[in-house]
Amino acid sequence: MRNLRLALAQTNPTVGDIDANTDAILSAVKNAATSQPNIIAFGEMAVTGYPIEDLATREHFVASAEAAVNRLAKKLMEEGYGDIAVVVGHPSLAEENDRNGWAIAHNTVSVLLNGLVTQTYSKQHLPNYSVFDEYRNFVPGTTSVDFEFQGLRIGLAICEDIWQAGDPVASLAQKQCDLVLVLNGSPFETDKDDRRTALVQKVASTTRAVTAYVNLVGGQDDLVFDGDSFVANPDGEVVGRAAQFAEDLLVVEISGSPSNATLVSPHAAHKLDDDWQVWNALVLGLRDYCAKNGFKSVVLGLSGGIDSAVCAAIATDALGASSVYGISMPSVFSSDHSKSDAADLADRLGCNYFTVPIERMVNAFEDELQLSGLASENLQARVRGVVLMGLSNQHGHLTLTTGNKTELAVGYSTIYGDSVGGFAPLKDVEKTMVWRLASWRNKHAEAFGQVPPIPENSISKPPSAELRPGQIDQDSLPPYETLDAILERYVGLHMSPVEIAAEGYEPSIVSKIVGLVDKAEWKRRQSAIGPKITGMAFGRDRRLPITNRFKE
Amino acid sequence: MRNLRLALAQTNPTVGDIDANTDAILSAVKNAATSQPNIIAFGEMAVTGYPIEDLATREHFVASAEAAVNRLAKKLMEEGYGDIAVVVGHPSLAEENDRNGWAIAHNTVSVLLNGLVTQTYSKQHLPNYSVFDEYRNFVPGTTSVDFEFQGLRIGLAICEDIWQAGDPVASLAQKQCDLVLVLNGSPFETDKDDRRTALVQKVASTTRAVTAYVNLVGGQDDLVFDGDSFVANPDGEVVGRAAQFAEDLLVVEISGSPSNATLVSPHAAHKLDDDWQVWNALVLGLRDYCAKNGFKSVVLGLSGGIDSAVCAAIATDALGASSVYGISMPSVFSSDHSKSDAADLADRLGCNYFTVPIERMVNAFEDELQLSGLASENLQARVRGVVLMGLSNQHGHLTLTTGNKTELAVGYSTIYGDSVGGFAPLKDVEKTMVWRLASWRNKHAEAFGQVPPIPENSISKPPSAELRPGQIDQDSLPPYETLDAILERYVGLHMSPVEIAAEGYEPSIVSKIVGLVDKAEWKRRQSAIGPKITGMAFGRDRRLPITNRFKE
Repeated sequence: MRNLRLALAQTNPTVGDIDANTDAILSAVKNAATSQPNIIAFGEMAVTGYPIEDLATREHFVASAEAAVNRLAKKLMEEGYGDIAVVVGHPSLAEENDRNGWAIAHNTVSVLLNGLVTQTYSKQHLPNYSVFDEYRNFVPGTTSVDFEFQGLRIGLAICEDIWQAGDPVASLAQKQCDLVLVLNGSPFETDKDDRRTALVQKVASTTRAVTAYVNLVGGQDDLVFDGDSFVANPDGEVVGRAAQFAEDLLVVEISGSPSNATLVSPHAAHKLDDDWQVWNALVLGLRDYCAKNGFKSVVLGLSGGIDSAVCAAIATDALGASSVYGISMPSVFSSDHSKSDAADLADRLGCNYFTVPIERMVNAFEDELQLSGLASENLQARVRGVVLMGLSNQHGHLTLTTGNKTELAVGYSTIYGDSVGGFAPLKDVEKTMVWRLASWRNKHAEAFGQVPPIPENSISKPPSAELRPGQIDQDSLPPYETLDAILERYVGLHMSPVEIAAEGYEPSIVSKIVGLVDKAEWKRRQSAIGPKITGMAFGRDRRLPITNRFKE
Repeated sequence: MRNLRLALAQTNPTVGDIDANTDAILSAVKNAATSQPNIIAFGEMAVTGYPIEDLATREHFVASAEAAVNRLAKKLMEEGYGDIAVVVGHPSLAEENDRNGWAIAHNTVSVLLNGLVTQTYSKQHLPNYSVFDEYRNFVPGTTSVDFEFQGLRIGLAICEDIWQAGDPVASLAQKQCDLVLVLNGSPFETDKDDRRTALVQKVASTTRAVTAYVNLVGGQDDLVFDGDSFVANPDGEVVGRAAQFAEDLLVVEISGSPSNATLVSPHAAHKLDDDWQVWNALVLGLRDYCAKNGFKSVVLGLSGGIDSAVCAAIATDALGASSVYGISMPSVFSSDHSKSDAADLADRLGCNYFTVPIERMVNAFEDELQLSGLASENLQARVRGVVLMGLSNQHGHLTLTTGNKTELAVGYSTIYGDSVGGFAPLKDVEKTMVWRLASWRNKHAEAFGQVPPIPENSISKPPSAELRPGQIDQDSLPPYETLDAILERYVGLHMSPVEIAAEGYEPSIVSKIVGLVDKAEWKRRQSAIGPKITGMAFGRDRRLPITNRFKE
């Protein structure tokens, strides 16, 4: 066995932008060249971005991706990188269709060398749970692939392949591979990094091969790929780890035997603490949604409350203060502290800030329609929605909706009111975590000698929608600590109300909360997308009928 | 072989309402008893309703369904129907989980006899394309099942099982079954009835068995099950056919040999023409959405245009005129004919009708915000949305959004404006079909001596959003015949722009339309559900990223 220098490249592809994505791969190869790698691996579907969803069922799309891979191989050769093995993920047309002709493509990895595609492997285990629809959109591969390169035996795997028993891992172990390359499109979830590490260590130990895990980075709709690529040796040691939430290149040298894998590239990458990881995921999710969809600025309502404050801080971190437009829209029920806390926030962030009082618009509706109670409360929220969308349409801002996961769960929001917007930064962040993130962000600022962005008063005051005099959230909901605990059990863990009550929660409260969650499904269906950060996000992660009379 | 009397019962279950659904099965058995059947088959998942989506991943839900099946078997026995074999569909807990523990249940059929479950078969082919997510939610069965009853060999299959090669059909053919029962949850699509018939005839011919196809009926969110159960003999003859879009019971006698299957129940069921089928699907979809979600009335904007007129007519057919609230919301740009056509429509339907002028509300916003062009046009639509939602909240009406499939495709609507609502009757009806249905409905009324509901002027005038002076749709869009033809090719048939242009459509128009469709994905994600009537509806039938730079 000879020496081999391996590079893992975390690119941030945009779904469908095949030319830009292959250009990024070429650039990464050029940049890596100074480290003299023999082989460079990229993430799953780095050529097309991931997930491509039903684009996989369009023959023209898949053919375009395959053509781009062939052009890339030639281009690498022409530019003098023909002797580097470049390992890239992309869809490829399957020889046999299945499922009534729906799935026509494989989820494939190609090895490009000397201007040609020299190896092709197609994913055998297609995840079709949680947010993944791969069995819907791909034909599974049936053959494991390994090949000799520079005196080493190299095996290929794609993401879910190593989360399931059997081939390809079993086959690669049998073939005594020296190096296993695992290409991934693995979205961020809190605590998932530890599970990935343990899994890859197990693959390394099973196969007795250096095992390299390379992941995409970047936001794609409701998913955030966190990078965090790493290499483990057969003894289970993590040899090197790339940055989280940023494009990066990791270079490892394998000399003599798999156990002698050593880090080549200087790397300060270290694990961020949990809150910092979540914050980065939310920032990257929003930044990439804007960048990849052509938005240069965002608009959002600033109520003086904690949700809008945290959203504005995320937006400022993502886009810069000059690209954030905060609108205060006081009504007759708005307290003085609401207005002053909103102004204080905008001042701390340095973002744009405008006030649009809504009383006149609300009165115009109330004079025409006889509304009372909830209908009248919703009216105020909807007038604010119309204001934000008017400004969005006029100035081209993306509208952010500031609701959190807890609100979305129990339907504690006004559809077409505070829910308007193209992106929901806190969609998967429960209320208690919103507070925690606010405190974390302030402490983080202090640690770096900056002004804490969130007004202390927005963190400490009792939350209120301020849609009627003296209203606070806890008038109609249990304390948020209890509410979030029940929601985590019902939504996150699939527990039944009986099981939840058995843990000591008041049965009538559990029953009320579960009823609210079920009843709000129609609103969630019409809600904006937002970054998934937990094991069970609302959206394609949790698919339930609207019409559903099951009483747990 | 002895005589056997077979009944097929079309029930209309509500997803999750396990008690009511099993009660309906028991009632159907009682009602059928006068025809003295030996065996009665119900639709796929008749116990839980279909599709149950991720409810299938909740152990408590699946266990509840299994317990209900066992109770039903005992109850049938107690009430004197123990000797009738009752064949019902329901989820059942699988012995082995798969896919990281996500799918825990089978899609199962049980035979109830003498108070017991005597046979159990689990679906082997799980559809996971189009609107179906069965491979996500179920563990496939691995064993074909047939059994002896009353001297006949009876085989079982579930829906997709007969659309795919191999078992169970191959196994049932080999076992020389006399009768094959196929339990289905097959949603309506135009022309699907012919495909089902041909398929069942093929199964009958392959197995040389009487083949009975029993389907659910009723609306469930975006799907409409059309019933239309039927029986084919081995010679390919359709012996009897149940009603479409209604609960029904079909009884067939098999005497001596499978070729001697004859109709017992008097049946006037006949195939409706295509427009009539679509109309019934739209009416049933809306009626059941209201009934199953507790809405007694609907509210919608009446613009004088064709879309709102057809929606109001569907609503009136579904719920009765007294449950329909039509609101005219004229602006300064509304023509006289808009107002008179809306009033004429309400008069013809006999529905409730109110006028709410929007000028004052629009002015209140315009005085606060400086809006122009599209932002100003959208404002009018959004003020109307706030009015409708205010009335909905105040009076408990379901809000209907009246947009059609063509608008939804190209994004020719205002999000949070004319798109507000919980249900979109025309979501899968392209504009040219809206006109055709209007004319059909009027002719149908005339044929039955009734007042044609749709004002002729709403059908014949050029369509306009009336958001600026003199505006008509064709200012910014090609003629609807061309537009719908291009959309059918791009959306329905997955053709690329190059392929569409090759059929003679102007390339620049094709390119513009395709660009509009791609760009409107974010709006479609937040749109209301509506009944699927075509092979490719917007919604879970077509899952594409919002962030998508692929230029075809």
